[in-house]
Amino acid sequence: MASVRDLTDPAAVLAELIRCPSVTPAEGGALSALGRMLNELGFDVMRPVFSDKDTPDVENLFAARGAGPHLCFAGHTDVVPVGDESEWSLPPFSAEIRDGELYGRGAVDMKGGIAAFVAALARRRTRGERSDGRVSLLITGDEEGPAINGTIKLLDWIAARGERLDACLVGEPTNPETLGDMVKIGRRGSLSAHVTVTGRQGHVAYPHLADNPLRTITAIAEALQAKPFDKGTEAFPPTNLEITSIDTGNDATNVIPGRARLSFNVRFCDLWTPDSLKAELLARVETARNGSKYRAGKEPAEVSFAWRGRPSEAFLTRSEDLISALSGAVAAVTGKAPRLSTTGGTSDARFIKDFCPVVEFGLVGQTMHMIDEHVALADLEALTEIYDRFISRWFAANPASRV
Amino acid sequence: MASVRDLTDPAAVLAELIRCPSVTPAEGGALSALGRMLNELGFDVMRPVFSDKDTPDVENLFAARGAGPHLCFAGHTDVVPVGDESEWSLPPFSAEIRDGELYGRGAVDMKGGIAAFVAALARRRTRGERSDGRVSLLITGDEEGPAINGTIKLLDWIAARGERLDACLVGEPTNPETLGDMVKIGRRGSLSAHVTVTGRQGHVAYPHLADNPLRTITAIAEALQAKPFDKGTEAFPPTNLEITSIDTGNDATNVIPGRARLSFNVRFCDLWTPDSLKAELLARVETARNGSKYRAGKEPAEVSFAWRGRPSEAFLTRSEDLISALSGAVAAVTGKAPRLSTTGGTSDARFIKDFCPVVEFGLVGQTMHMIDEHVALADLEALTEIYDRFISRWFAANPASRV
Ligand SMILES: [Zn+2]
Ligand SMILES: [Zn+2]
Repeated sequence: MASVRDLTDPAAVLAELIRCPSVTPAEGGALSALGRMLNELGFDVMRPVFSDKDTPDVENLFAARGAGPHLCFAGHTDVVPVGDESEWSLPPFSAEIRDGELYGRGAVDMKGGIAAFVAALARRRTRGERSDGRVSLLITGDEEGPAINGTIKLLDWIAARGERLDACLVGEPTNPETLGDMVKIGRRGSLSAHVTVTGRQGHVAYPHLADNPLRTITAIAEALQAKPFDKGTEAFPPTNLEITSIDTGNDATNVIPGRARLSFNVRFCDLWTPDSLKAELLARVETARNGSKYRAGKEPAEVSFAWRGRPSEAFLTRSEDLISALSGAVAAVTGKAPRLSTTGGTSDARFIKDFCPVVEFGLVGQTMHMIDEHVALADLEALTEIYDRFISRWFAANPASRV
Repeated sequence: MASVRDLTDPAAVLAELIRCPSVTPAEGGALSALGRMLNELGFDVMRPVFSDKDTPDVENLFAARGAGPHLCFAGHTDVVPVGDESEWSLPPFSAEIRDGELYGRGAVDMKGGIAAFVAALARRRTRGERSDGRVSLLITGDEEGPAINGTIKLLDWIAARGERLDACLVGEPTNPETLGDMVKIGRRGSLSAHVTVTGRQGHVAYPHLADNPLRTITAIAEALQAKPFDKGTEAFPPTNLEITSIDTGNDATNVIPGRARLSFNVRFCDLWTPDSLKAELLARVETARNGSKYRAGKEPAEVSFAWRGRPSEAFLTRSEDLISALSGAVAAVTGKAPRLSTTGGTSDARFIKDFCPVVEFGLVGQTMHMIDEHVALADLEALTEIYDRFISRWFAANPASRV
């Protein structure tokens, strides 16, 4: 078991976490190891398990220490599968170091972020710094999976226990190329749907007796992609739609299929709500359905929409002191002002934003989810220093008397 | 065993054939029953079996009688599956009659056509008419299946035996609504292909790092369908393209797929050869690939073509005496002039046309391949009379001295 002294070394902490094979939804020992470390650092550690009828049970962790203004660190110990293990240069769960880089699944996404935060807490304790508030860690084992039994339930669970969060830092990898590139201060919204077109099956030699749904699908695909949704806003890039699949499943050369399905995802800026975007999408599809030039003379085909999952809203963090505590700490350590961005995918910040202001900063994401995921030891050390300074800056800006 | 007298009744002949369950590739006793009938009518009957490494062995029949100008009747005894047998009003292999209609799989496609031809031959014999030439039946058990071990091999086989055909009548159902509607004097060509587009897989949140093949597929689908290929010709309807499938197989909402495939079939008129049409299709795809407005700023995606199967050429029968012998016989019996058409799907006529002029006339196709396939006894009788008159007319136009 790690000593308090070891915990000041983020590489040692990270190695211990990587050696726990916590591929979603397996806990793999990772939350237990983290819980032991946090116990040593004086935290109360709770391990709620959440269930759901359709998905596996998931273990989670909430650990807190102190009283007063409440700063939370959020993240996940689950990792994506390793793929073909034989393609890794170094084993994915061994945490071996080569040329100053530590290899392993989760090195950057995001056991490395957790390790840096733990090491920052250990260093503060070693220095004898007294926390002037409450610090907590909200860690799920279900971020890479369906995310049903993870952060979203953990937030309700801690709220039901009377916990109130004042600010949150998510430790996901946010830097595209080098540490210090980018702080995330919001996220685009995300909306997915299936569009099913039902025509009339028939023989290719008798197209007048059939209604080929792929003619309508072509028109819908065009209408969804043809016109930009917007030009973006100061804080957000333009809304973008990607068709993710078109499927028919007809292998016969002489058969006009009866049905086809198109799936798409939209990442949208704060000019849209999920509802206003749904209305725009429905209008585009309806226009294509009625006006398709590929099927002149035919009645419009039957088109049905199924929204997939629950959409995420676009959001932007408005807390100036949270943003400046983070970007100030990044600048102090890396010597550069990070871009304040809302690009990239969704993260659990989409759930947290309903409870408190949230920002995100972590390692460099380049090797996340890939073969040979790895992190530079120098980045781990710098991130530890950034988190240490961030904690100091945030509590300085949020003294106990103000909360 | 049937007597010569019975063979003059097309319904009796048809019932015997329907009771042989000859679903492709099963012979089911149908060719044997037909062979016995033709023996009784004085034909030499041969039963070649053809094999192939990828498909089942198939039995076939060639029967001939007489010398001189050679008129061949071509068809098939195999039938398509019955589907859900419990949905049939009368059992599919019992040949029961209700309200003047004979029910059973193959009633119109095309055991009914064979039965009418056999009955016509039997009547000619009963009347003591002397054939003034050679009559043959070229019957396969593989028309509804892969059609690899059927007519195409049978034609080579009889040619190798020194047989030369002067004209051929295919007995497939050609009438859309009532007997006498339509004689087929040619067929459109048919060409099928897969188009595979390879882009670059990625995350929907980072479209600039990926290349969505469905953007190129959308542009290709548009280009293939946007512009008519032609307006048709005097003998042919306009060329028509149907996209038969688009497939991706990506179920993840957040993933831009790496590859997608589009399949299509073109039925084309005699303004095109398979080669000229291939060139036009390649040009349309290439234009779409280079100029897609859906993917501005990206290099053209990788597109590969695979032509499926071997294309059929469009063909038109030029033999005036063959066409007028048939349409004259139809008009004499039904009182109406049939349309001379090239519409509809392909048939084995596409193989026969390389050996001799070929025309097609049979029953009404409305119930072919369906539950409750059935034929009106009145149509069977009328078709028998038409075939009888056709034989007389053709031999009258092609006396032995001319050949
Ligand atoms: Zn992550
Ligand atoms: Zn047929």
